[in-house]
Amino acid sequence: VVPRGDDAAVVQFGSEQVVLTTDSVIEGRHFSLAYFSPEQVGAKAVEAAASDIIAMGARPQYVLWSLMFGEKRSPEFYAALARGVERSCARMKMVLVGGNVTQGSGGLELSMTVVGSIPDKRQPVLRSGARVGEVVMLTGMVGASECGRIALQGGLEFPDLARAHLEPRCRFDLIDKIGPHASSMIDVSDGLSSELHHLSRESQVKLIIDESKIPVHQEVRRFATHTGADPLSYVYSGGEEYQLLFTTSAERAERLPAALIGTVESGAGVAARNTNGEERVLADSGYDHLR
Amino acid sequence: VVPRGDDAAVVQFGSEQVVLTTDSVIEGRHFSLAYFSPEQVGAKAVEAAASDIIAMGARPQYVLWSLMFGEKRSPEFYAALARGVERSCARMKMVLVGGNVTQGSGGLELSMTVVGSIPDKRQPVLRSGARVGEVVMLTGMVGASECGRIALQGGLEFPDLARAHLEPRCRFDLIDKIGPHASSMIDVSDGLSSELHHLSRESQVKLIIDESKIPVHQEVRRFATHTGADPLSYVYSGGEEYQLLFTTSAERAERLPAALIGTVESGAGVAARNTNGEERVLADSGYDHLR
Repeated sequence: VVPRGDDAAVVQFGSEQVVLTTDSVIEGRHFSLAYFSPEQVGAKAVEAAASDIIAMGARPQYVLWSLMFGEKRSPEFYAALARGVERSCARMKMVLVGGNVTQGSGGLELSMTVVGSIPDKRQPVLRSGARVGEVVMLTGMVGASECGRIALQGGLEFPDLARAHLEPRCRFDLIDKIGPHASSMIDVSDGLSSELHHLSRESQVKLIIDESKIPVHQEVRRFATHTGADPLSYVYSGGEEYQLLFTTSAERAERLPAALIGTVESGAGVAARNTNGEERVLADSGYDHLR
Repeated sequence: VVPRGDDAAVVQFGSEQVVLTTDSVIEGRHFSLAYFSPEQVGAKAVEAAASDIIAMGARPQYVLWSLMFGEKRSPEFYAALARGVERSCARMKMVLVGGNVTQGSGGLELSMTVVGSIPDKRQPVLRSGARVGEVVMLTGMVGASECGRIALQGGLEFPDLARAHLEPRCRFDLIDKIGPHASSMIDVSDGLSSELHHLSRESQVKLIIDESKIPVHQEVRRFATHTGADPLSYVYSGGEEYQLLFTTSAERAERLPAALIGTVESGAGVAARNTNGEERVLADSGYDHLR
């Protein structure tokens, strides 16, 4: 039903549309055991994969996990990892239906497959559905996870940011609040600029972002003061968070629990308008692992 | 519908039973790039995961893949890997619906999720369905892959065995021939003795295997002569093959394309009767990676 390239795939079984995704979290890339507890790793893996289902306007229901590890760890370690997976599943009323464990050669890796369905026979929300004249919306605030990672690695005390990195939560709470109203949607797992470019490309529209309207966490501002960076650099290029970026009509926007950060215009690419009203092209900081 | 512990999980979507599995092939464990081509790795990953669906009496239909790699390789390498995945999907008329790629810290790893359904509204075939008075059946011959692996690693010339290791094929061809008639089923991916023990435990029956009836590949016999080992040791403890082990009634057995290798008795465990009629307990050579 939905081909490759969106957050998740949609396939038809009889009269049912089934939404499928697989996503991995990898030691040294998505988490470090220097500061993640095994519970936090297990939970993060579930949240990351479930978020791809939610970004389709769908409800995650079943989980299969695949655990690979290089170094053998204690039974307590694996029990804690499983507890993290199970708690996150329980939070979203998802059922863990299977999985497998293999000893590999690298670090700890968790691959999660999440299967879901779209409530009330709605259609999946694709990346390609943004229309000229609509507005761009963002749930919550992004950038905190990236700042938290840097703070944890540098031994800096920013507990709110550290928690944003260690315990990201997907927006399971917004499935029914946002899903029925979004014309296009994606989750912000690779940083805002990269995700804006995905929506722009797939929908063949230009997105214009008003930087003064992007909500920025006050701890991200404080962190940026500390590092001397522009706080928006963390917002644009951070990732590992599961807020939803979507488009909708201006009328619907007012009633939705998200910030209006821009508009959908005809054209291509993404532009950012700064607080002085100057517009510039926003670079796509995402990258393809195979290039 | 079917809880954790079988080859695959079965979940209900509306009126449809959907069968799900995830399985990984890992460099250094399930394959070596010293002798596997990337096409062969891609194909093996698909065959291994699809086999778990087939062992439920179900038809594999959709595939999601997750590729993790440590060392970056050439674009040609990844193209060949993808070609292997696609060819194997095409062979079984499966549709590749998505996937993701991540750079990890270890070797090459492919995690495959396969989703399928059970033809003609049949019920899934579980490991727990064997009944006293039935017979034990095996499709094809096992042990060749394990011998092939040893031959490849030792530089020995056994081309048929090498091919069995490099290009294992799941029994997609037997879904409709065996599925409707099997009372319990499992695929032989971890060696025959381990799989016999799974069926015995899950069905709470004793299995008695007549060793004279186990078909053994003539090249496995020739290889065993070369190494001085008992050819049955490869059959029992080999793996990485996707033949089907199942139980059915004695009457049905005659018409099925598989060898009758034993009987289902009341009791527990697995016994092997050798060509002299002596019976011994067959050890469970499978192992749990976390113990």
